[in-house]
Amino acid sequence: MLPHQHIKQLLDKVLRNYSIDNIRENGYDLRICGEKYYEVLGDAELPNKRSSLREFRFDDFAELKPLKTYLFESCEEFDMPSDLAVLITLKSTMARNGFLAPPTVIDAGYKGKIAIALTPVYSTKLKKGMSTHHLIFLRLDEPSSKTYSGKYQGGVIL
Amino acid sequence: MLPHQHIKQLLDKVLRNYSIDNIRENGYDLRICGEKYYEVLGDAELPNKRSSLREFRFDDFAELKPLKTYLFESCEEFDMPSDLAVLITLKSTMARNGFLAPPTVIDAGYKGKIAIALTPVYSTKLKKGMSTHHLIFLRLDEPSSKTYSGKYQGGVIL
Amino acid sequence: MLPHQHIKQLLDKVLRNYSIDNIRENGYDLRICGEKYYEVLGDAELPNKRSSLREFRFDDFAELKPLKTYLFESCEEFDMPSDLAVLITLKSTMARNGFLAPPTVIDAGYKGKIAIALTPVYSTKLKKGMSTHHLIFLRLDEPSSKTYSGKYQGGVIL
Repeated sequence: MLPHQHIKQLLDKVLRNYSIDNIRENGYDLRICGEKYYEVLGDAELPNKRSSLREFRFDDFAELKPLKTYLFESCEEFDMPSDLAVLITLKSTMARNGFLAPPTVIDAGYKGKIAIALTPVYSTKLKKGMSTHHLIFLRLDEPSSKTYSGKYQGGVIL
Repeated sequence: MLPHQHIKQLLDKVLRNYSIDNIRENGYDLRICGEKYYEVLGDAELPNKRSSLREFRFDDFAELKPLKTYLFESCEEFDMPSDLAVLITLKSTMARNGFLAPPTVIDAGYKGKIAIALTPVYSTKLKKGMSTHHLIFLRLDEPSSKTYSGKYQGGVIL
Repeated sequence: MLPHQHIKQLLDKVLRNYSIDNIRENGYDLRICGEKYYEVLGDAELPNKRSSLREFRFDDFAELKPLKTYLFESCEEFDMPSDLAVLITLKSTMARNGFLAPPTVIDAGYKGKIAIALTPVYSTKLKKGMSTHHLIFLRLDEPSSKTYSGKYQGGVIL
């Protein structure tokens, strides 16, 4: 797990459009951006039919209804090398205010912004550019012989 | 954290009944199987009285109601050595479609299939055999002097 | 990731007010304590206005309503060194009984008890002193050049 000073060495290479103050003791605080945010509407039959989404303009604040899932675009862009992965956790402050998020991973070789899912238990407002998730960086035991080439490559948000 | 090529070395030993295509850059995509799946009914008083469950036959699809918790059996079987643990995360596609799952761990020494919990925010259908969770493998700093002998040993699903 | 015997070496230094039986194969089972527990009421506008909370006396059992978020104080106290972090996961038994919790981190340098958030899908009762979360300890690649000095330092629960 990478300490502060190793995360600093990732700047402009692995991590772009960052905020220097968001580099923490052993992680990085991810921020929400984007011109739009999305409410999941939920008529999925997986893996074949995905949920439809309702878009909202993301001006100063996102207004969230309780017990719906929302998707946001990160401010940050990634260019993950073949020997590093990220575990996306939730900021403690978000957890204390009644937000839910599952654990997810940014794989070695992934490039682009990421989409992040948030489910508020309560009606809430979130300010554009605020930090919501906390990333921890885990070094692979050696570079992966397979690097990400999945459907979200390049930062496909939806 | 194990890269693709090290996860491949676990096949047939640590990981059984796998799908070779599910080995990813730095993880493995876990699939849901089983003849039945279970809805948690929720009258627990923990730690003494556990929730009762309603069983459903798992034919082609599981039909899930919103904001209920469901338990599934993994297709995969584990025979975890004393120096390896797994962190169970959720596949990004599941998160984007409004599924919630807490982070959980498969401990060193655990043997058997695992039960996985999923809470959909929306009404959804899930196809039998699809991948829902993403496993990352973390090497312990040395073999654990204590290996799993808990109540779920051997793949006790419930 | 620290095995059983390395977690034992943390006792009385990094981890205080522990239960020796809660040291597991590759983690530690965190318990809920405190004279009070808190229901999140949810009128937050983040990052500026946080949710208000309703307090309850925590005698023998906490009584939880479905789909509300609750905050508990850990029994355990931490004095995290500069080269160690904790990932807070949920105990498998809690997940199987319909509890949700996001993944969160205890940072290098953090001192004090921690507040833990739990969201039950169902109405449930939890006994004081029971184990709810499972901690895994991750060694940083080297000591962090920045150690925790955030707003929760010293175990500020709210």
